[in-house]
Amino acid sequence: LARADFKFFHGLRVRWAEVDMQQVVFNGHYLMYFDVAVMEYWRHLGFNYPKDLVQTLSCDSMAVKSVVEYHQPAKFDDWIEVGVRCDRIGNSSMHYCLEIHRGNEHLISGELFYVVVDAQHYRSTRVPEAMRQRFRDFEGTSLIE
Amino acid sequence: LARADFKFFHGLRVRWAEVDMQQVVFNGHYLMYFDVAVMEYWRHLGFNYPKDLVQTLSCDSMAVKSVVEYHQPAKFDDWIEVGVRCDRIGNSSMHYCLEIHRGNEHLISGELFYVVVDAQHYRSTRVPEAMRQRFRDFEGTSLIE
Amino acid sequence: LARADFKFFHGLRVRWAEVDMQQVVFNGHYLMYFDVAVMEYWRHLGFNYPKDLVQTLSCDSMAVKSVVEYHQPAKFDDWIEVGVRCDRIGNSSMHYCLEIHRGNEHLISGELFYVVVDAQHYRSTRVPEAMRQRFRDFEGTSLIE
Amino acid sequence: LARADFKFFHGLRVRWAEVDMQQVVFNGHYLMYFDVAVMEYWRHLGFNYPKDLVQTLSCDSMAVKSVVEYHQPAKFDDWIEVGVRCDRIGNSSMHYCLEIHRGNEHLISGELFYVVVDAQHYRSTRVPEAMRQRFRDFEGTSLIE
Repeated sequence: LARADFKFFHGLRVRWAEVDMQQVVFNGHYLMYFDVAVMEYWRHLGFNYPKDLVQTLSCDSMAVKSVVEYHQPAKFDDWIEVGVRCDRIGNSSMHYCLEIHRGNEHLISGELFYVVVDAQHYRSTRVPEAMRQRFRDFEGTSLIE
Repeated sequence: LARADFKFFHGLRVRWAEVDMQQVVFNGHYLMYFDVAVMEYWRHLGFNYPKDLVQTLSCDSMAVKSVVEYHQPAKFDDWIEVGVRCDRIGNSSMHYCLEIHRGNEHLISGELFYVVVDAQHYRSTRVPEAMRQRFRDFEGTSLIE
Repeated sequence: LARADFKFFHGLRVRWAEVDMQQVVFNGHYLMYFDVAVMEYWRHLGFNYPKDLVQTLSCDSMAVKSVVEYHQPAKFDDWIEVGVRCDRIGNSSMHYCLEIHRGNEHLISGELFYVVVDAQHYRSTRVPEAMRQRFRDFEGTSLIE
Repeated sequence: LARADFKFFHGLRVRWAEVDMQQVVFNGHYLMYFDVAVMEYWRHLGFNYPKDLVQTLSCDSMAVKSVVEYHQPAKFDDWIEVGVRCDRIGNSSMHYCLEIHRGNEHLISGELFYVVVDAQHYRSTRVPEAMRQRFRDFEGTSLIE
């Protein structure tokens, strides 16, 4: 993937408390950045979590797998941009590609696998049509269903 | 207060992710250590959170004020001991003194002010007698009610 | 203090990972918000941490005491504004007042006490004149020295 | 892998601040548990980080990739055990398998890929023999070099 493959980026500044003694962001915190950026991606698509998923559709989403590849570290006070792209929706699953950039530098790559569950019993259920449509409208033909 | 004023200590090891670029524990994380230690103090008194408070007594507790004084920093991999002592219970309020020690060194002092609320409307309510008795039994005459 | 007593606010959105099972921001995380906001306050005054303090002036700052008062909790996805004001500078000490607001609601009050130290031995030293001037210029006569 | 494939487990209790509104550990925090457990694994093998790597051997280690699979969530106050096993050492790379168990339940699987770098320029360098020997002694013939 390249930067141009992402239609959505969420910018954020690295906080002091997120940086460790190696003077880089602690490796686990990138998953928090991913989480923040996915929420903002959904908001950008007009789909607010948890309201539009849990209250309106009685569903929820759960992470089932995450992958982070560390190319270059982010450092304190860096302004970084987290690219988010939903590229595949299965029956109950969603797959997201993520990248973190600092200016022209590509720092981090990642993947998130979610499954949609019914909000009552947390059993996997089909990704609701109202949600799929948001992703189709935004990602266009690059979204695989 | 001195170390001998605490009947309860909870030990823990400082984690890599909790230490910042100054090579010391980030100042906000001591409140997390306090929170962990108060839970363990309650457990030690035979009162498990949230079961024995929320489920059994339909109450909850909320922090209303916290104070942290930083004498010396804790560092990566330090084994530290967090002393907890409930020294005052008002009508709906509880006051805790806390200290963090590393061997003979007194690193941190703190105070936590909690209020007990009913679990339904989160309005302040009298600290339940079943809870008071646990503190009286453990702290003895040093507990002010 | 009232909202009008603050000339500087830093806005941020509450993250999912910062909210606990009581559906409110974990009480310790407000100190992280304070830390972020103080850094932004310094940046706003043209004084970037750590460069302008550690590299240029061979000093550093350390928290010596923090106080947080919890009036109302911040919740997931809230847009909150953290007001920062340096109101007293002693020989080596600095005192900040902080407030967190959500729209018209005043959620949190706090205080931070820092001491300036030389960057080599971490012994307290006089707050550098270059730093004082930044605060004087911004806070005006309300700053007590 | 099965529980019996791990010779080392590090136990820890889930903290209140680590649990989110879904009443489960936030998905990013498992990487922090992994990090803590790898440090304890090294300690168990008689190799203390950072002293025995950075000071003694002038090397450091950096995460290059991490994978987390979420089978079942850990919850507040759970006592969980994090299994760690170094199963492959390349020229400059190390690969770890990790699993988190709660009693008989297998909650989480993970992998960590590290690279050893020289502590001065952070360029990849051969995993030092003194370190390899520790892993060989502990993991025996199951370690692939």
